[in-house]
This record gives sequence, C-alpha cells and structure tokens, in this order.
Amino acid sequence: MKIRKLMISVLIMSATSITIASDKSPEQSHGISYPTGWQNWSTIAVSHRTDNNTLRVILGNEVAVKAARSGQTNPWPDDAVLGKVVWKDTQLENWKAATVPGKFVHAEFMFKDSKKYSETYGWGWARWVGLDQKPFNKGTQVCTSCHTPVKNRDWVFTDPAAFPKLK
Amino acid sequence: MKIRKLMISVLIMSATSITIASDKSPEQSHGISYPTGWQNWSTIAVSHRTDNNTLRVILGNEVAVKAARSGQTNPWPDDAVLGKVVWKDTQLENWKAATVPGKFVHAEFMFKDSKKYSETYGWGWARWVGLDQKPFNKGTQVCTSCHTPVKNRDWVFTDPAAFPKLK
Repeated sequence: MKIRKLMISVLIMSATSITIASDKSPEQSHGISYPTGWQNWSTIAVSHRTDNNTLRVILGNEVAVKAARSGQTNPWPDDAVLGKVVWKDTQLENWKAATVPGKFVHAEFMFKDSKKYSETYGWGWARWVGLDQKPFNKGTQVCTSCHTPVKNRDWVFTDPAAFPKLK
Repeated sequence: MKIRKLMISVLIMSATSITIASDKSPEQSHGISYPTGWQNWSTIAVSHRTDNNTLRVILGNEVAVKAARSGQTNPWPDDAVLGKVVWKDTQLENWKAATVPGKFVHAEFMFKDSKKYSETYGWGWARWVGLDQKPFNKGTQVCTSCHTPVKNRDWVFTDPAAFPKLK
C-alpha cells in the first residue's frame, strides 16, 4: 500500500511539472524576451511568398495596429511590435485552388525602440522557431541583411492591408 | 454679423453630422447586425485563392478562436463567429515573389446558433462589401450553395492554422 501511494504521488508530481513546463515562456532571442500572447494580436496584413512556398500573417501589438490603421508607419512609433507568423503552403482539400497554412515554420518579430535599438536601425529583431518556439540566436545581421531593400520604409516590408474604418 | 454666425452654425452642424455618419454601423445583411470591432479579432487562418486571385485572413470572435485553438470545430460551438476578410492580389514592390493584399473586396461572416439558424444549417450567413461595407442581401443560398462541399465539416472550409501553445 505504501509503494502504491508513493507511485501515485510521483505520478501527480510528474503531471504537475509537465503543466508548469508548458506554461513557461521560451528563452530570449537576441536578448529579447518572448512577446507573450502574440497569438491573439490583431491582423495588419497577410502574404504569400512563392519563392519559398510560405503563407504569412502579419500581426501587431496595440501600438502597431493603431499606427497601421492610421498610416503612421514611416517611421513606426516606439513600442510598436510587428509579428510575422509563417507556415509552409498546403492545398485545401475541399477547394484545390486555395493555398492554406500547413506546417508551422516560425514566428518572427520587430520591436521598435529608436533609442534602445539604435545600433540595429531602431528595431530589435527576434525569432522563435517551430511549435516548440526555439529561440533563434544567429545574430540580427541575418534579419537586417534581408530587410535592407526596405531601409527607406523604416526597415518594414509590410504595407498594412486596407480595412473598413466603419464600426 | 448675423449671417456670419449662421454660417458658422451650419458649418458646425455639418461637421457633426459627418462624424455621426461615419460612426454608424452598416445596415443588416440577411437580417444580421454588423459585428462591430471584427477588425481587431484574432487570426484563425489565412488563404490564397488562385482561382479568383484573392488573399484572405480568417478571423474569429473569442468563442471561435478558443474553439479553433482547442480543436472544437466539428461542430463549432454556439456563439462562435467566423469572419473572412478578402483582398484582391497585388505584388509587393520590394519583394516581387510576395503576393500581398491589394484592393479590399469584402468581409463575410458565419454566426453559429444551432437553434436560431436551424433552417440554414446552424449558421447565420452575412457579408458586407467594399470599404463602405454595403450589406449583401441576395439570399443565404448564395453562401450555402458554395459551402455545400464542406457540409460534413459543419459547413466550414477553414482548417485552423497551427499556432504554438506556449505563452
């Protein structure tokens, strides 16, 4: 009976630690903390890249969405955070002409702070890879070299999509 | 002086009525009221239709997003509202292989209420067209006939995209 009780205790403890583990935020990427709750941010735009067969949604925190909706995007205001969520292409089973999200690739973010990130063009650059959100730490030059063509657009590719302003 | 005061009053009144007009919600579509604030709902999926060259984001109200994230989508729960926002394709100037949102086409919605909408398969079907959000009132059969291939998926084409569950 004592062994059985001990086993039950161990099982309960294991279950508890698994829950705690999945509640923990991922480690930092390029010294930037994980932007908790981004999954529920509002949409700024979408895109489909045919060079690497990925679909994307571009999300923003409240500061970024407000700036996007009012056209204040060059420069974007401090504290704006833009998130790009990337999935590999797949085909919708019931509508073959529709390309839809397949495997999740990564979520990458730009954090605007013109002082704090003055050495990287006013933005903090971060990425978390895969559904387990492994931090990307290969250096911000990987991000900025790709974004160089849009240095005159405050380093942002995205044009905010047109949304009706009506309530 | 009296005429000048009258003119100023008229100007103020005109400005006030313009403000009120743009604050007003659009008229009903198929007897359904406009889902105020949908522009800030969270993302469930995205899609790119190559048969009519449109990009879409599929949004949901809180009930729908919770259901999508936890896989409770066949059937979707009552009070779930799904929104599909549609733009014509265009090409991103600084990254030619990226298709991005051009002209806004319409926002269309499915409102789940298995009792209230029992005659239209448990969903209310509505659409508002253009940036001025003109209500679509050509009959719900326009919607349901197109959705018939997915009648066994609770009439919904969308597979919710995979999102990391980490906080």
